Parts: sequence; C-alpha cells; structure tokens
Amino acid sequence: MKNYEHLGVLFADHLRKFNSSLEVKTPAELYQPCNYILSLGGKRLRPLLALVACELFGENPNKALDSALSVELFHNFSLVHDDILDEAPLRRNQPTVHLKWNRNIAILSGDALLVKSLQVLNTYPPEEASKLSELMCTTAMQVCEGQQLDMNFEKQNSVSIDEYIRMIEYKTAVLLGCSLKMGAINARANSMQQNDIYTFGVNLGIAFQLLDDLLDAFAQNSELFGKRPGGDILANKKTFLLLKAIALANVTQKKEIASILALPGETGHEKINRMLQIYNDLGIKTYCEQSADAYTNAAIASLNGIQADPGKKKHLHEFANQLLNRQV
Amino acid sequence: MKNYEHLGVLFADHLRKFNSSLEVKTPAELYQPCNYILSLGGKRLRPLLALVACELFGENPNKALDSALSVELFHNFSLVHDDILDEAPLRRNQPTVHLKWNRNIAILSGDALLVKSLQVLNTYPPEEASKLSELMCTTAMQVCEGQQLDMNFEKQNSVSIDEYIRMIEYKTAVLLGCSLKMGAINARANSMQQNDIYTFGVNLGIAFQLLDDLLDAFAQNSELFGKRPGGDILANKKTFLLLKAIALANVTQKKEIASILALPGETGHEKINRMLQIYNDLGIKTYCEQSADAYTNAAIASLNGIQADPGKKKHLHEFANQLLNRQV
Repeated sequence: MKNYEHLGVLFADHLRKFNSSLEVKTPAELYQPCNYILSLGGKRLRPLLALVACELFGENPNKALDSALSVELFHNFSLVHDDILDEAPLRRNQPTVHLKWNRNIAILSGDALLVKSLQVLNTYPPEEASKLSELMCTTAMQVCEGQQLDMNFEKQNSVSIDEYIRMIEYKTAVLLGCSLKMGAINARANSMQQNDIYTFGVNLGIAFQLLDDLLDAFAQNSELFGKRPGGDILANKKTFLLLKAIALANVTQKKEIASILALPGETGHEKINRMLQIYNDLGIKTYCEQSADAYTNAAIASLNGIQADPGKKKHLHEFANQLLNRQV
Repeated sequence: MKNYEHLGVLFADHLRKFNSSLEVKTPAELYQPCNYILSLGGKRLRPLLALVACELFGENPNKALDSALSVELFHNFSLVHDDILDEAPLRRNQPTVHLKWNRNIAILSGDALLVKSLQVLNTYPPEEASKLSELMCTTAMQVCEGQQLDMNFEKQNSVSIDEYIRMIEYKTAVLLGCSLKMGAINARANSMQQNDIYTFGVNLGIAFQLLDDLLDAFAQNSELFGKRPGGDILANKKTFLLLKAIALANVTQKKEIASILALPGETGHEKINRMLQIYNDLGIKTYCEQSADAYTNAAIASLNGIQADPGKKKHLHEFANQLLNRQV
C-alpha cells in the first residue's frame, strides 16, 4: 500500500470536496444519507484501482479522479440497496441507512448515488465520457444480475461451482475490473491494454472473494479478517466451500451436511464445528486455495502481458498480493 | 393525437423489440419484472414527446427512438420504486412489481431499469450521447429530489404554494421537458431552441399536474380522469387546492379544515363533501385554473418563440391542448 499512499491521499481529498458539496444540498433528507454512507470510510479500493491504472499507463492520476469518484459512488449505491435487501443492521459498525433514516429514504438516496455515479463522468470530454459511461452501465447491469443470482441461490436446491463463480464475478469482481479499465481509458491506453487490465481486475476480484469465503470459515485472526468467522456457516450461505463439499460428499457426508444445514443458526459453535469437520474431511480448504490460486495466476498473467513501466507493474503485483493476504 | 399516430406506432414497435430482448435475458427474476412493468401500457407520453421534438426540428424521428426508449425506461424505473415507497397495490389496474414478486426484486429491477435508461443512450455518437446523458442525469437527480420533497411534505406542517410548484416541477414536469429536449438534441437544434422546447415541456407539465389536482377533487367524469375522484382529499394530500385553501381560510374555515383533516379516510363522502364545500366557499377551483392557465400560457409562449415549421408547431400546440383536456 505504501507505494500508493499518494493516490490514497489524492482521492481522499477529492471525495472530501464532493462530500462537502452534498452537505449543503437540499432536500437534506435525500443528500444527508449519501453524505453519511460516503463518510463511513472503507478501504476505497475501487477508486484507488482507477488511479493506479491511470498512473500505470503513464498519465497523471489526477485525470482519473472523477472515474475514481464514479466507482466509489456506485459501490456505495450498491451498499445502501444491498443492506435493504439483506435487512442488515450495521455497515462498518454504524447503523445502515435504512435503519438510521428509513427504508424509503434508503431506496431513494441509493437511487441518487447511482445517478450521481454516472453524472460525474460527464466532466470528461464527450469521447472519453461516452466510453466510461458505457463501461459503467455494462458493469452496473452485471452487478444487478450478480445480486439477483445471489438472492436466487438462497432458494435454489443445487448451485454448481461454475454458477457460483459467475455470481461472484458479477456481484463483486467486475467492478474491480471496471475501476482499473476506467483509469486505463483516462490514460488513453489502447484496447488490448484496457482489456488486459480489466481481466487482471476481474480475476483478482474472484480470487479475493474465494479467499474471503475461506477466511470466513477458517480465519484464526478475526482482527485481520474484520468479521467474526463462521458467519457464512451459521447463515447456510452457499459459498464455494459448501458447494464444493456437497459436490464431493459421499452418502453419509451428504446426510451430515443436510442435518447441519437444518440446525438453527443459534446453535452457534456446534453448527460451525460440525461443518468445519466435514470441510476438513473433504480437504475443502485446499480446493478453495487451488481455485483462488488459479484466478490469481490468471490475473498475474494478464498483468505480465501489459506493456508498461516495469517498476509500476511490480508495484501493482505487490499490491495484488497484499490485497489477497489482507494486508491492504 | 391523430397527427402523431405514426410516431406512436414507431415507438411501440421499438419498445416491443427492446421488451422482447428482455424476455430471454437471465436471471429471469431480474428481467421479467422489467418486461412486466413495460408491458402494462400507458400513454407513452414521454417517448412520444422525444419523437415529436425530433420531427419538429426537421430530423427523421427514427433518430430519437433510443432517447424515447431512455425516457420511458426512466419513467418505469420511477414507477417501480415509487410504488414501493407508496406501498401501492395496483399500477394500471395490475399488481405492482413489489406485490407480484417481492420488495427486494422490485428494488433491484428498478435499479436495472434506471441503469438501462442511461445505457441505451450509448448507441448515439459520443458527442450526442454525452449531451443526452448529462441531461438525463440532471433530470434524474431532480426527479429524486421531487420525490423526496413529496415525502417531506406529508410530514411538514406548512408548505407554501411555491414549494409545492417546485415539487411538482421536479417530480413530474422536468421529465417532460427532458423528453422534448432530447429529441431536439437528436435533431441538432441549437441551444436556444433546445431551451425553449424544454421550458415548453416543463411549463406544460406543471399545468398538467395542477389540472390533475383539480380533476381529483372536481372530476364529474371519472372515466375521463382514469381514477376515482376525491382520493387526494381522503389521503389528506397536500395538493395545490388544499394548500391554497389553508392560505386563504379565515379563522373559522381554518378550524373546519383542521377537523376535516382529522377525519379518518374511511369517512369517505363526508370528508370529501365537507372539503369541497370549503374549496367552493374560497373559490379554489378558479385559483387553480388561473395558475394552470398561467403555466399553459408560458408553455405556449416558449413554443411560439421556436423557429420551426408552422404546421408542426400548430400540431404540437393542438397536442398540448388535448393533453391538458385529457383527450390524449
């Protein structure tokens, strides 16, 4: 992260200015929730990627500031609406918008953030704005599809690993690819470079999500992970781990999985421990690590193919590793 | 409307094609609700205005088809989300999306319609797409603001007539202006003409909404109005009529209004009749008509200032009159 500290500062300043402008806008009931969610912090990973890509392709990262703002606004729109869908009470340890205000205000201010995420792209010259808007719209549709697939999976009896990967690709990974590609567009990188950096981001995003599934079950250090482990197991969430376990289980293990899934979430430790036992018996951790490695390697291969300053590529390679190891 | 029949047919065909493409898209749970709301019909007023403006400024209306689609998609997004906010059970006599499916699906498919409304603009060349997108985003933000103001007014003790007009301008009228201006942009009309046709649309929209308030209270012919009259009175809705009545009432009348507002909606006829009595005593109908006339005249003045084929201007003038008289 140290290599990108200057970019973090650059974006923080840009976001602060944008966010201040929201404070004075009326009606306050529409803009205050936008200001609130944007103030809750977070890693600002997506905007950072936009700036990183812009710099990687030899352009002043200042040029990508509105792209960075766009992806951060879009990300925050999706948080506000997803929290309604999930009936989540907390976001970054603070009350979610629909609880702090109400559901209607959360729907409407989410809509406003979505519109703003596209509106800020209009600061670019038409040719550039048009490319960025097209990419953002395509990505936004995929994110909606991914969110819907995730909701469908909850009710679906069987979900294949391929379907699961497609879901996390759309719900999470494409926005990382989009962020990087926007920075590349701002830097006027050629289409091949744009596509390579996009593929790098998508594969990195899939690897990140697979490792997130893994940590949710196996994290020893919940500080590092940021959440209490076992949440996915308690919620019967159809993660890579559970889907792979179901795919590999013998008849006895299938019965055990079914009976664990039937346990109420309040069972707590028993539910978690019995599922971890199944995961261990089937070597699920290794399968998940192997799959994450495959996506990481695909990401690195895309990065290697890019023609850019070797030092900058090395920084991005390091950053990717730090991200996957939760050191960002 | 007869003058614009060809445009109605043109758009219906374009929408049908777009809507068919949604039928095969997955996940179906995301796209079927979009297809459903777009299939419920409606006057297709906004897309018609885009085509009308494009033709008015001497361009083939085909060129404005994606602008027309954009405003119709945006309008349908706002219907899906507004119906959640209002907990409305019916839309065009059919179950609303959140009741036919569920609230989460309605939030997400509304989001998808909003994104699509901007995405379809990317079919235009960059310069044009960028102008259209900028206009649509500005309008979309105003519509969100108008919706929030409307929600605020429900809880606000006092609302001025000016505040009310601003609310209906943002919530309803700007999208009519936007539709017309998009058609003008497609026809490469100059900025003055773009602004005049926009102002025409906004003023027409305000006049239309004021007459809608009037009809809700005084419509003799509910067939023509399309809704059962008195709904606003039963819901204590802060319309132009109620706000003007409160502004003009003497002490006794203010007390009577307060006691009518305290009556439960189920009181039905009594509540409606007592409020109509107040409106009649204060001559509210005339005030509302005068205000609607003022906005109609402002609209016509803008139209008159436009340099275009007099025959086409006459058609649009006639259309505006038909619209205000509910003959469209």
